[in-house]
Amino acid sequence: MNTFGTHFRLTDFGETHGECIGGVIDGCPAGIRIDTEFVQKELDRRAHTVYDTAKTADCNTRREPDKIRFISGIYEGKTTGAPLAFLIANVDAKVNESANHVLKPSHNSFVLKEKFGHTCNEQGGRFSARQTACRVVGGAVAKLILQTLGITITAEAESIAEVNDGDTAGAVVSCVIRNVPAGWGDPTYDGLDSQLAAALLSIPTCKGFEIGEGFRAAAMCGSQYNDTQTTGFVFRSNHDGGVQSGISNGQDIVIRAAFKPIPTLRFDQPTIDYEGNPATYTGSTRNDTSVVPRVLPVVEAMAAMVIADQFIIHNS
Amino acid sequence: MNTFGTHFRLTDFGETHGECIGGVIDGCPAGIRIDTEFVQKELDRRAHTVYDTAKTADCNTRREPDKIRFISGIYEGKTTGAPLAFLIANVDAKVNESANHVLKPSHNSFVLKEKFGHTCNEQGGRFSARQTACRVVGGAVAKLILQTLGITITAEAESIAEVNDGDTAGAVVSCVIRNVPAGWGDPTYDGLDSQLAAALLSIPTCKGFEIGEGFRAAAMCGSQYNDTQTTGFVFRSNHDGGVQSGISNGQDIVIRAAFKPIPTLRFDQPTIDYEGNPATYTGSTRNDTSVVPRVLPVVEAMAAMVIADQFIIHNS
Amino acid sequence: MNTFGTHFRLTDFGETHGECIGGVIDGCPAGIRIDTEFVQKELDRRAHTVYDTAKTADCNTRREPDKIRFISGIYEGKTTGAPLAFLIANVDAKVNESANHVLKPSHNSFVLKEKFGHTCNEQGGRFSARQTACRVVGGAVAKLILQTLGITITAEAESIAEVNDGDTAGAVVSCVIRNVPAGWGDPTYDGLDSQLAAALLSIPTCKGFEIGEGFRAAAMCGSQYNDTQTTGFVFRSNHDGGVQSGISNGQDIVIRAAFKPIPTLRFDQPTIDYEGNPATYTGSTRNDTSVVPRVLPVVEAMAAMVIADQFIIHNS
Amino acid sequence: MNTFGTHFRLTDFGETHGECIGGVIDGCPAGIRIDTEFVQKELDRRAHTVYDTAKTADCNTRREPDKIRFISGIYEGKTTGAPLAFLIANVDAKVNESANHVLKPSHNSFVLKEKFGHTCNEQGGRFSARQTACRVVGGAVAKLILQTLGITITAEAESIAEVNDGDTAGAVVSCVIRNVPAGWGDPTYDGLDSQLAAALLSIPTCKGFEIGEGFRAAAMCGSQYNDTQTTGFVFRSNHDGGVQSGISNGQDIVIRAAFKPIPTLRFDQPTIDYEGNPATYTGSTRNDTSVVPRVLPVVEAMAAMVIADQFIIHNS
Repeated sequence: MNTFGTHFRLTDFGETHGECIGGVIDGCPAGIRIDTEFVQKELDRRAHTVYDTAKTADCNTRREPDKIRFISGIYEGKTTGAPLAFLIANVDAKVNESANHVLKPSHNSFVLKEKFGHTCNEQGGRFSARQTACRVVGGAVAKLILQTLGITITAEAESIAEVNDGDTAGAVVSCVIRNVPAGWGDPTYDGLDSQLAAALLSIPTCKGFEIGEGFRAAAMCGSQYNDTQTTGFVFRSNHDGGVQSGISNGQDIVIRAAFKPIPTLRFDQPTIDYEGNPATYTGSTRNDTSVVPRVLPVVEAMAAMVIADQFIIHNS
Repeated sequence: MNTFGTHFRLTDFGETHGECIGGVIDGCPAGIRIDTEFVQKELDRRAHTVYDTAKTADCNTRREPDKIRFISGIYEGKTTGAPLAFLIANVDAKVNESANHVLKPSHNSFVLKEKFGHTCNEQGGRFSARQTACRVVGGAVAKLILQTLGITITAEAESIAEVNDGDTAGAVVSCVIRNVPAGWGDPTYDGLDSQLAAALLSIPTCKGFEIGEGFRAAAMCGSQYNDTQTTGFVFRSNHDGGVQSGISNGQDIVIRAAFKPIPTLRFDQPTIDYEGNPATYTGSTRNDTSVVPRVLPVVEAMAAMVIADQFIIHNS
Repeated sequence: MNTFGTHFRLTDFGETHGECIGGVIDGCPAGIRIDTEFVQKELDRRAHTVYDTAKTADCNTRREPDKIRFISGIYEGKTTGAPLAFLIANVDAKVNESANHVLKPSHNSFVLKEKFGHTCNEQGGRFSARQTACRVVGGAVAKLILQTLGITITAEAESIAEVNDGDTAGAVVSCVIRNVPAGWGDPTYDGLDSQLAAALLSIPTCKGFEIGEGFRAAAMCGSQYNDTQTTGFVFRSNHDGGVQSGISNGQDIVIRAAFKPIPTLRFDQPTIDYEGNPATYTGSTRNDTSVVPRVLPVVEAMAAMVIADQFIIHNS
Repeated sequence: MNTFGTHFRLTDFGETHGECIGGVIDGCPAGIRIDTEFVQKELDRRAHTVYDTAKTADCNTRREPDKIRFISGIYEGKTTGAPLAFLIANVDAKVNESANHVLKPSHNSFVLKEKFGHTCNEQGGRFSARQTACRVVGGAVAKLILQTLGITITAEAESIAEVNDGDTAGAVVSCVIRNVPAGWGDPTYDGLDSQLAAALLSIPTCKGFEIGEGFRAAAMCGSQYNDTQTTGFVFRSNHDGGVQSGISNGQDIVIRAAFKPIPTLRFDQPTIDYEGNPATYTGSTRNDTSVVPRVLPVVEAMAAMVIADQFIIHNS
């Protein structure tokens, strides 16, 4: 199903090759001022390619002029409590005919064929990276809710693999969520850490998640690691990354996500066609080198929607 | 809420200091033979401490004689399709009075106080590691379902931190799920990787998750990473760890989890009491050095329940 | 939340006084031919007022020119498996200023004030009868799915109260669902009868639900009532209305719903304003006399979505 | 699935012919005093047969000595916030061999065969009326929560069909829920009326539901029906039965349910066997004449759990 969240809930739709993509945000409290310029800026962050390890000139010239349009749920600039629906028109929506007949390596063409019995293009491009624009809109609305409590969410690139011309690069993104009150989350199965992990792994090409020390914790001993507290409940350290037993402890929530290299390269790759015969996946001339920086607002958006879900529970 | 899963669903209950713990497994198909000896052996794997970096003699002597008893849902040794309820009696159920008055560092006492306004012991010990025994039972039943398709799940310790006497050690656990058919999972928000990440992060002390190359993918370039296919849909590599775009591709599903050191040490730690005044958390004389090996059947159980959930969808 | 259904799921949005209403239909199988003319005809059935107990000439002249437009999920006339989003433009969308300052008797103005602290018009008219147009679209798509199995759903007016000029009339609507296979539903909490009851009661002004003999069963004895079977599993009667213990038995599913009179009258009613002071609710000049016949496609739509939900489970 | 409710949630298990039945109540707030005598009395109300239209002496002698035992979630007499598990031992648990080979008319044997491919007895009697004892326990806990707000729930028999010796009688039960604050419920798909309808229809043999005037509303005109308000928001009538547009309005919530005659008679009935050949369903010597009065605490329990679900949302 195409719905994310329990109490703050995004249902999105649309195909790359259709007339638009869009979504419905349900559960947004009434009275939140929707700053459409802010939402548009978040979309712009996702659309533009600034970082360029490969120094290829045309890398920055690609544009997806994503323009947000809300069509319900807002009255005189504020949410009414009714669902917010939004549309983002597709300006350049022609089907990519050339890619239609072979499997794209390490992408979704093989698994979609196995699951649905047809290719992504036959679905008009439902499962492409473009769908993340809808997540950014959901996340932008979540941020507008959270800022009423002073909660902020900031992602940044921590490292990007070095690559040669035409290749693509994996990356690590870190994200800090500030000012979440202590006591949000669940101590059993629906912990904040579980929810954040699921949210980030749902971003295409994400392959790893850490909270606090993450895998570094595995090399530590308890006397180094433990976040002890001193007078007035003040923590001396934040190795746990702000979440203990699935519940926020009032410290910064610090998470990291690993992204694999984008599967599309600028040079040809060996592959097979839909019948299993050897074929060539032709290099693209307009792909990004890394998910960074476009993935940063997506990471923030997924984190924001998880935290907004908790906000609804705790402030309804 | 104390329920895990959507179609194959475990709801568990019970406190360390009550008469028993237990659970209800709903969604189990009819006709599955319940091998109670197998379930008991899985529980035994969780209860015993074999690994001992610290070479302390008494480390292996601690026992929790967890004895499984199914009380519904089974007729002549097979599931009927009705919910399976089970109980595990608590043999040694007295409240740990000494620990009652100070916050346990990097544990759940502070966050439970913030969330519920009372301590874990006032809840009779609901949120202790003992609850994972119920997960192991749910996972054992899931494994019995999955073995009808030849699906196997095996976790092992990959590394354990070196520690001195009395300290505790973080660890990395890897887990391989074999023979999952291609096409299981979801391409948007409920991908297999998202579900496995959430499942593993819900295990106490888990701080990181990887699938396939995980964080190593972030240092790779696309030409190294991409899992290309050759004649007959055969994959040349498995960097993606068996899941692409949230959907299984028929290869081994390979995941890893990072566990922080157990918070309880054998020596005293500085802490505060429930009013925020400086205090000492007294060292324990009977804690484990590492979550390994007790966590291994828990990791397998969580993975098994996620895969069984998919089994129900695809084989109903 | 504004979502109906579990596996076949409608999420709708939009206000009477906004630019459009619409919805997202998720869970629709791939390969279903979407006959937009059929969907439009279903919408037309809801929009037009044919029945007229009051013989007032202008009763038939009111039109809501609802025009369906699908914007995603369809490729070459067939569903792709991706969510279907649709829009219905609001042609005449000005806020009803006159009704803004007093409570509408037996309508939702008082309870919305109590729940949300504001009036319906401040929400732009989210909770009006117009929202049922979205249900009709969801139901029309559900019918297109169900007709592949030969399942048909037909509602008709069974009785309408006699009223004088300017008053409104309650009504009973019956609905027959044919060709549902035996074995659909759930024997415990999520029975087909429970789901149909909830679905019909969610229609504005619905106050009662029956399946089979309904309240007449309460005056019967077992020897009259019991649906016995004869050779070849053939039933001799259908007092149970096609559902036993929450599960379809292969007979026609026969349900009935009671609708109260429409609250808006053509003459003035005593009421109070939002501060609790006596006031007058002015008679309308353009309201319907009865929910019949406009409610018929809505009843069918709700039933169709419930049955389609089961279809997904049993034919996936 | 065997779970009822969203925020206040009962998951029940057990078979008539197993060692016990029981359940897990999740979502109960901490600090509620669990009066086990009250819970036991509610169970006793369900177990005993007092009403007897047929004047058969032995009708009152049948006893199910249901004894409640809570095994988790309670500390010093109060809930801890952790799940409450409970058991009710089966004293007389032998399988009813005689009934095993033919279909019981208007009962669940045919539909269970169609759905699961086996008979109820092969499931050990999961889907029998005995399961309603678990609902009564869930409802009793819900009532203990609701009484902290002064909310009371009372069901009574409104009418029972007249029958001759050995036959069974349909009945109408009415139920009044008092002191629910205005503003509880949902204006779209999850209205209080929808939830109550689904809850009551899930009780075995329930065939109809009304709120307020119910089917009588269908014969009324708006000028008779409308619940107008006067100074201070006081309602002049309660035809709507306390719920408007799915939301409570602060008046008594008045609902009614129709129950068909119990399918088991004291004389033989024509039926077929599991192969579809003519057979006889032998009359029972120990069945009830009507679901009344045993069904009264079950009706109250289902209503109580629906209202407790709302309580959790509005008082968390």
